[in-house]
Order: sequence, then structure tokens, then C-alpha cells
Amino acid sequence: MKVMITNDDGISAPGLSALYWEFSQNHEVFLVAPDRERSAIGHGITLNQPLRVEAANHNGLKGYAINGTPADCVKLAVLSLMSEKPDIVVSGINPGANLARNINYSGTLGAAREAAIYGIPAIATSIMGKQGHDFKYSAEFTLEIAEKAVKNGLPKGTLLNINFPNIPRDKILGKKITKQSSMVPKETIEVRTDPRGKKYHWYGVELSSDAQGLDLDEPAVNSGYISISPIQCDVTDYDFLETLNQWDLDT
Amino acid sequence: MKVMITNDDGISAPGLSALYWEFSQNHEVFLVAPDRERSAIGHGITLNQPLRVEAANHNGLKGYAINGTPADCVKLAVLSLMSEKPDIVVSGINPGANLARNINYSGTLGAAREAAIYGIPAIATSIMGKQGHDFKYSAEFTLEIAEKAVKNGLPKGTLLNINFPNIPRDKILGKKITKQSSMVPKETIEVRTDPRGKKYHWYGVELSSDAQGLDLDEPAVNSGYISISPIQCDVTDYDFLETLNQWDLDT
Repeated sequence: MKVMITNDDGISAPGLSALYWEFSQNHEVFLVAPDRERSAIGHGITLNQPLRVEAANHNGLKGYAINGTPADCVKLAVLSLMSEKPDIVVSGINPGANLARNINYSGTLGAAREAAIYGIPAIATSIMGKQGHDFKYSAEFTLEIAEKAVKNGLPKGTLLNINFPNIPRDKILGKKITKQSSMVPKETIEVRTDPRGKKYHWYGVELSSDAQGLDLDEPAVNSGYISISPIQCDVTDYDFLETLNQWDLDT
Repeated sequence: MKVMITNDDGISAPGLSALYWEFSQNHEVFLVAPDRERSAIGHGITLNQPLRVEAANHNGLKGYAINGTPADCVKLAVLSLMSEKPDIVVSGINPGANLARNINYSGTLGAAREAAIYGIPAIATSIMGKQGHDFKYSAEFTLEIAEKAVKNGLPKGTLLNINFPNIPRDKILGKKITKQSSMVPKETIEVRTDPRGKKYHWYGVELSSDAQGLDLDEPAVNSGYISISPIQCDVTDYDFLETLNQWDLDT
């Protein structure tokens, strides 16, 4: 199959490299990635500055680096750089989970969603934690899912969001097909003072270890399972349409 | 009611000013906006640089300007700047429609979605076109909807996405409660050469004038109606869960 890969950590990230080499063994890989880290950029795209496309050859990886967002990478690949649409777009492997509300902030998901909007099967793949990742195992499993997704098909406008626990592969308890959790973690804003006496703000967040509800993405991964969630592009709240129609508005 | 307002065009944008003065007449307004334009930033948030909060007093508007994204503005307002949660968050008025797939790219929507994640009723409000906007009328109508939303309530995790056609108020045909259109417009990538001989890329898009399906957001506005769509935060594809559970995976 013809696989476009991208990420939100930039062309030199080890998670991208793991995907590249795993998929390259038996498939045609087309790599377009941001030229630097673009985490938490969500589904942003670049409209107010021109995009530059540079051929990249990073540690043997051949592809393109772009001064844009992950979603920009998919747009440029599909609309310009590739001679035909890929069979699937795979975005990752992101170091750090993309679960629950983080699906909104994630550039990894933004790229996969952009592909799904174009009707291309897509996968976002991430692994919990900040270090010690087994990208090799995650890449192998992601490849298996990608092959299944191309063989079985995905509904138009639906992508898969895979998240791995950050534990040795023989400790992983299995996989769970999950729903997006609506859990909001406890958050803080830390206010500090810079050396010139001016205040600045950082977000802080307390990681949850909630193990309830193994049918939900975050608890499943926290409990040691690989989480696979089907994510759709259509965000209409169909259940509320009729109620809203009955609101008494002047216009 | 206590209303937090923000936008993605920055604190000096006329659409924000229109909201501010309209809502201030009978309600308590708390303004937190980006210090500059942050269009197409989607639901991005700022993790890799500290956030600065500056008291702003722009043409009589009192509030705060932040060196972050629209979603950052909501986070800082809710977690730090406001003494209690607002009754509603209103984001806009954006010059340029936020319909169909543009809901993903839009910073205006990112702010409203951030509020909805916190369980706060929220509205994103936008008007088609690039100039000649009747922000006054849009602000009046947005106020009416906001008052109704607070009175009637919205489902937790659901926001309203309002879009106005850019025509005189007496030409507006009425309102339509709509679903998100999945229409993808014809797109182009224009490649140009800079004065130093290096290539750069711009997105181009052909605006659609599709008038089919007045139950869909984009056609409704293109036809002269105000579109109101209920948008939900949960992006799980529930219909596909069972099929996915039946995929034969090794793990």
C-alpha cells in the first residue's frame, strides 16, 4: 500500500523514524513532516505566511520538511506533492498520549483528521509518557492496524486513534476498542516572575490515574491496554437539533 | 448574566468590539482576547512558551490581552482570571464564515469548544465575507441566542456555531438550525518564486455557492439564512465501535 506518514514533533523525531522503517519494509512510504516540533497546534493550518517545502534526508529517511503544521503536511502531500492519494495516512508516533480532550489540542490528531476530511483512511498513533518508549513495538502494532484499515476500510470521515501504555510489550494486557473520555483533569495555572520582574503563566496539570471504565480511552491506557478509538469528523450534535429547532427566536 | 468574550482576531478587532458593547448593555462582560490575530490556529494551546497576561484598554474596551491562542484565553479566564465560571462564553464575531470543515481550523471555534469541554455553555459567531460586515446586527442576534442558551441550557459539551450571511439585515431570509456539511471545496496550491529564486506555496480555494440542502450549515448561509449548528465535543464514532471490535487483531 501507499502510506503517507507525518507527525507533530518534526522530521527528526524518533517516533516518526520508527514508523518510517517499519512501514518501509513492505509498503511505499511518502514522508512529509513539520521542520520542527509543532505540538499542541491542534488542527491549525497556515494561511498568513507562505509554506516552504524542503527535500529532507534525515538519517536515511527520505521525504519533505515543511515550515507548517501537521495538517499542512497532509494538505500539501495530498494536493501537491503526491501523484495520487495515499491509501492511508499515519500520524505519529507521538511521545505522550492523545486521549480524551487532548484529541482537540493534538497536532498528531489534526493531521489524521485532515486526511479523514479528504476521505482518506487515517490513523493517529501515540504512546504515553515522556521517555523510555518502545517505538518499535508501537510501530509494529500500528502497521498491523493500518493494513487492516486499508483491507477492511473505514467509514468515510472516520479515523482511528491508537494510544499505547508506556510499559514493556510483554506487560501490555491487550487492546480495547474505546470511546473518547470526557474527563477533564485537575488543572493549575502557575504564575512566576521573570528576572526582570514581569509575570508569566504556565499551565500545570495533574495526571489522572483513573482506572474506571475500560471502554473509555484514557482509563484503558492507564490500566495497561492499547486503546483504539474510532474518531469521526462530523461534530454535529444530532440529538439536540430538534430541541434547538423549538427555541422561540425572533428572527 | 456573566459573559466571557474572546475571538481569534485579536483584541482590536471590530467584531469583538461589537460583541462587547452589545452584551455590556445588560450583562457583565469579561474580555480576554489574543494580543494579535490568531486565525486558523484551530484548538491549539500554548505549552512551549510562557503566557503573558496584559490588562488592555482598547477604545474603551476593558479586559486582558494574551500572547496565546483563543483556547488559551478561555483556559486562563476560567482557571485564573475570573473569580467564578462565566454563565456563557461567546467567541467572535469572526469576519469570515466558520462552516463545514473550517470548524476544525477555526480559532473562534477552538475557544468555544474549550469552554464546552469545561461544561460552560458557549457560542461561536461568524459572518461571511471579508468586508462590509453588519457586526451590529450579528451582535444583537448573538445576544438573543446567548440569552436563550443560558435560560434554556445546552447539553453538557455542546456549543452553538452561528454564521451570518454578509447581506443587509432586511435581506436575511431567516434562520436555519443546521448540521455540519461534509463538503470539501476545490482547493489549489499555488507555487510562486520569491525574489531570491526560492519557491513558496500558498493555499487557494474556490468558494462554493452550493445552495443544496438548507439543513446544512454552508448551503444555508450561502442561500441567505443565519445558520445555527449544535456542535458536540465528543468525537467518538459510536456507529463504528462494534465493527471495529470484530476486527481480527493479533494482540
